[in-house]
Amino acid sequence: MDEAARLRAASGLHRVLRPRAPRATATARTARTAGGAGGPVELPVQGSLQPWTNGDLLLDLAGNDYLGLARHPEVVEGGIAALRAFGAGSTGSRLVSGTTTLHGELEEALAAHLGFSVALVFSSGYAANLAMLTVLTGPGDLVVSDERNHASLVDACRLSRAEVLVTPHADVAAVDEALASRVWRRAFVLTDSVFSADGDLAPLPALHAVARRHGAVLLVDEAHGLGVVGPGGRGALAAAGLAGEPDVVATVTLSKSLGSQGGAVLGPAALRDHLIDTARTFIFDTGLAPACAGSALAALRLLTARPELPGQVRRRARQIAEATGAPEPAGAVVSVVLGDPERAVAVATACREDGVAVGCFRPPTVPPGTSRLRVAARADLTDGDIERAVGVITSAIARTPAP
Amino acid sequence: MDEAARLRAASGLHRVLRPRAPRATATARTARTAGGAGGPVELPVQGSLQPWTNGDLLLDLAGNDYLGLARHPEVVEGGIAALRAFGAGSTGSRLVSGTTTLHGELEEALAAHLGFSVALVFSSGYAANLAMLTVLTGPGDLVVSDERNHASLVDACRLSRAEVLVTPHADVAAVDEALASRVWRRAFVLTDSVFSADGDLAPLPALHAVARRHGAVLLVDEAHGLGVVGPGGRGALAAAGLAGEPDVVATVTLSKSLGSQGGAVLGPAALRDHLIDTARTFIFDTGLAPACAGSALAALRLLTARPELPGQVRRRARQIAEATGAPEPAGAVVSVVLGDPERAVAVATACREDGVAVGCFRPPTVPPGTSRLRVAARADLTDGDIERAVGVITSAIARTPAP
Repeated sequence: MDEAARLRAASGLHRVLRPRAPRATATARTARTAGGAGGPVELPVQGSLQPWTNGDLLLDLAGNDYLGLARHPEVVEGGIAALRAFGAGSTGSRLVSGTTTLHGELEEALAAHLGFSVALVFSSGYAANLAMLTVLTGPGDLVVSDERNHASLVDACRLSRAEVLVTPHADVAAVDEALASRVWRRAFVLTDSVFSADGDLAPLPALHAVARRHGAVLLVDEAHGLGVVGPGGRGALAAAGLAGEPDVVATVTLSKSLGSQGGAVLGPAALRDHLIDTARTFIFDTGLAPACAGSALAALRLLTARPELPGQVRRRARQIAEATGAPEPAGAVVSVVLGDPERAVAVATACREDGVAVGCFRPPTVPPGTSRLRVAARADLTDGDIERAVGVITSAIARTPAP
Repeated sequence: MDEAARLRAASGLHRVLRPRAPRATATARTARTAGGAGGPVELPVQGSLQPWTNGDLLLDLAGNDYLGLARHPEVVEGGIAALRAFGAGSTGSRLVSGTTTLHGELEEALAAHLGFSVALVFSSGYAANLAMLTVLTGPGDLVVSDERNHASLVDACRLSRAEVLVTPHADVAAVDEALASRVWRRAFVLTDSVFSADGDLAPLPALHAVARRHGAVLLVDEAHGLGVVGPGGRGALAAAGLAGEPDVVATVTLSKSLGSQGGAVLGPAALRDHLIDTARTFIFDTGLAPACAGSALAALRLLTARPELPGQVRRRARQIAEATGAPEPAGAVVSVVLGDPERAVAVATACREDGVAVGCFRPPTVPPGTSRLRVAARADLTDGDIERAVGVITSAIARTPAP
């Protein structure tokens, strides 16, 4: 009996495996039938993942390696030194056997760089966001959450069992109203600092003023802010003078500007102990691999030593935005809205065929009618890279008609 | 104004930071007042994490590096080669820029080793478990879950919004009854294969028979089975002849026997595409760092080349169990139940002072009255290591009176 027949015959799983949610969107998974640019475009291949190989000559404007540090020799060597000193894995929970001296050094460096009292490192930004929400909030609490917050923040809210009110994007008045609309035990205002798809900045000073007036705490995901925004890449909270405030908690990832893997929660001194004692994604997860901690620490030291890097990536992003007619970006991400989803896929596919990889966001990741290219600048792009990227992108747009 | 005063004055956060849940338990965080063995014992220091340094001479029986591969030269070199070839991070979601050829090789090797059609790699075992439950189950579905399942499975159930019925540990009749007790759209039986705290084996053949009779799917976390149990370390499902069955889905971690970091979901062919299209902890997470993928792949190749390793770790575990009077372990974990939590902490602390690190589990991680040492064997322990470990543990128990 072949596998499909076994599946149908023997189990309930075949009923489970019908897709239940809209497909995710990604340029790197698209495939075309034979034919030149402008030819027939197939929809993305379900379930295919297009790997990068070491020999790829693609200009990568799809990833989040904003400072170009993922392949920097010092960052690579930081990981290698950690592998040699501590081994390939941390072998257990941070509470048991998974804490190395590197983890502590990285946490001190992160807290110092971002201007918070303490930091605690997790195996991913996802895990850090789950920890922040589930440890700080619970039933009876209110979380006021921006409608464009990252999926990990949405999942974290669900897991926390707090009451969640979703407000229109960057709408401070709506946040004010939401905080006034309920009787709550504790309240929180939750936002990305720089939004991943649009590349715009949250109105942090106004959000913090509203939160403080209501006695609420501001929770900010600096995943796309660290290394890109603020003085020396200290993030959007530092730029707003809010880093280290007693009613502000932040998360970061180590996998974007720092070119590695992992995440961290940052806040007032008492928060770290509280997370260690109660955060399930900390207690019941294996500690971040030494190589990832070592690479992230090396990248953070490079960022500290080269405070001009964030300005470089922002300048490159502005250049791309100007040449493609996109709105001025707050950080590294340029959002080239094309409207129609199939056109966005066609343009992204054409760019890749011409050697420039860009992201492609469609509903439900972005609102209907706003399908777009997501072009991520890097600090290490040259003038020639920018010229090539802009040429490829504008040409692909020009020759791909709207349906 | 000092920070504590600012905290009290300005924000709602001070109300948040009172611990809301029982403290986690860990030997490595304990501290003692001055004085010899048997002296006054303090409770674990809240929020402290005791780092391992490269120079530690501790015999580590606390971590989950069951095959002793985390520091194996080939595993370290596998990570280094990946760092050099692909950089320190995967730079984005696996769907966009985060898939390297290494990820595909690792997935094929995992599926082949464990006897499943396909595997999909995640940044942690936690993320893999969240994916398995949230993608396969939802509102209207029933998940029958063993009361001792890992925290990540519990969180995954919460996030899935399925109805969850918790059954007594390893109680097949209760699972049968639970499946018959409800009207459900789809049903699932969820269990660890080898339980982390007790070290015992789930009754997989009986659970599968019950699940199949009801048309339910069996979901098994092989975190502590891979590399330890089954022919060549292929896991408890392979040992039971259930690997690759169409109504069985498994998860593994790369951070225990494989000495690295990450996790994977394994199952029938259609499952991989479905996960890629819908699993939020896959789509919205940065791909596993190349170093972790490279090290895990090297460890898996070592395990394949040395099928005697799993037998070695099980033999070492049995030796420790026999000498300490613990029940015969199914895998690498020996559970030395001491009963009283303070006595368990005192014994674990004394062991560490004498150079042997063991885990210490107390309520709520284990049921009241069953506080214990968790002693994890490794395949690379020598006769001398076993002699030393058993001597230190039995001596610490003998000189630490029950309260």
